Amino acid sequence: MGEGILFVISGPSGTGKGTVCRKLVERTGIHFSVSMTTRKPRPGEVEGKSYYFVSEETYSRVLEEKGFLEWANVHGNRYGTPREEVLKQLDRGRDVLLDIDVQGALQVKKNFPQAVLIFLLPPSMAELRRRITGRRSETPEAIAARMAAAMGEISRADQYDYCVINDKVEAAADRVEAIMKAEHSRVSDSVYELIEKYKKEERGEMSL
Amino acid sequence: MGEGILFVISGPSGTGKGTVCRKLVERTGIHFSVSMTTRKPRPGEVEGKSYYFVSEETYSRVLEEKGFLEWANVHGNRYGTPREEVLKQLDRGRDVLLDIDVQGALQVKKNFPQAVLIFLLPPSMAELRRRITGRRSETPEAIAARMAAAMGEISRADQYDYCVINDKVEAAADRVEAIMKAEHSRVSDSVYELIEKYKKEERGEMSL
Repeated sequence: MGEGILFVISGPSGTGKGTVCRKLVERTGIHFSVSMTTRKPRPGEVEGKSYYFVSEETYSRVLEEKGFLEWANVHGNRYGTPREEVLKQLDRGRDVLLDIDVQGALQVKKNFPQAVLIFLLPPSMAELRRRITGRRSETPEAIAARMAAAMGEISRADQYDYCVINDKVEAAADRVEAIMKAEHSRVSDSVYELIEKYKKEERGEMSL
Repeated sequence: MGEGILFVISGPSGTGKGTVCRKLVERTGIHFSVSMTTRKPRPGEVEGKSYYFVSEETYSRVLEEKGFLEWANVHGNRYGTPREEVLKQLDRGRDVLLDIDVQGALQVKKNFPQAVLIFLLPPSMAELRRRITGRRSETPEAIAARMAAAMGEISRADQYDYCVINDKVEAAADRVEAIMKAEHSRVSDSVYELIEKYKKEERGEMSL
């Protein structure tokens, strides 16, 4: 209560993280952290909204300056979460949403244990294959590589705080929204302050 | 996923646990566990719905037969949660809601660590005093005793999983409902089964 909470959504490529995150931003107005990447924009992706698309040089400079909360190489591309913006929002009491891959999410948890990790699962592997195959830009080799990577990532779901199956976007977003609300009622350090407040009030009343 | 979850709501007498629990039962249809007590019914309380009102003899017999999931003495009255009914509902995959005092809640957590404990807080000590004073049946001595007991109980809120402030009943019920929904997405033993399911499916596909 008071401080913002960092929510990290990840899961295999093709699980629909992006769609669920957009839905959450629409519904709750949560601050969405935009990652930096060296990969090429896909059709429909918007600079500064989907990603900050940067050169290898720019990326390396930010990395050297320890400007990333996490960073990862995925399928030969480099991704990173600019640290400063996230911390600024949390300090202001705003929740922050990250949409990152599994490597990155576990790195955030390590550097920032109070982060809440949500793993988004496909309803089945067959469905994941259908979704990945639907992307025209993927070669059969790329699809096979993605399926193998997905299985490796799913094996690490047990290191997360929550698992949500993305069967339908609205239902998945409902579940994540409930998690966000519930986490604000979690007993944490702030409860000690709250208990002290009640004690002080009661001592004040007693002395009347 | 699969098994039901035991949710325990407690907090100081006068915080409005009963009202919030009724609201939750109305909204979600969650199974409400009815406690046994040796105390006299208050106006409006219904046998078998508010409590099972029993004699000292009946209570002692159930206790001897280890038939309580938890039991406690509060203000000279005895309360207990019949064990069998709770376990039966959880086995069937239904969530169960308990409305019990703090002693009892911590006993449940000890005997049943997978239970989810929710502490309901008054918005302030002044408001708690107003609510307690509003009950015509209370003498000034009884009120003083309840306020002291309340402060002792609030000090133990840090042993709970969640803390919810009951400022407005609807808002408090919303928060508890979000907690219930979120807990069903919590990573627990069932995630290992889920991961195995995906692995089996993928191995099946690979061999085609």
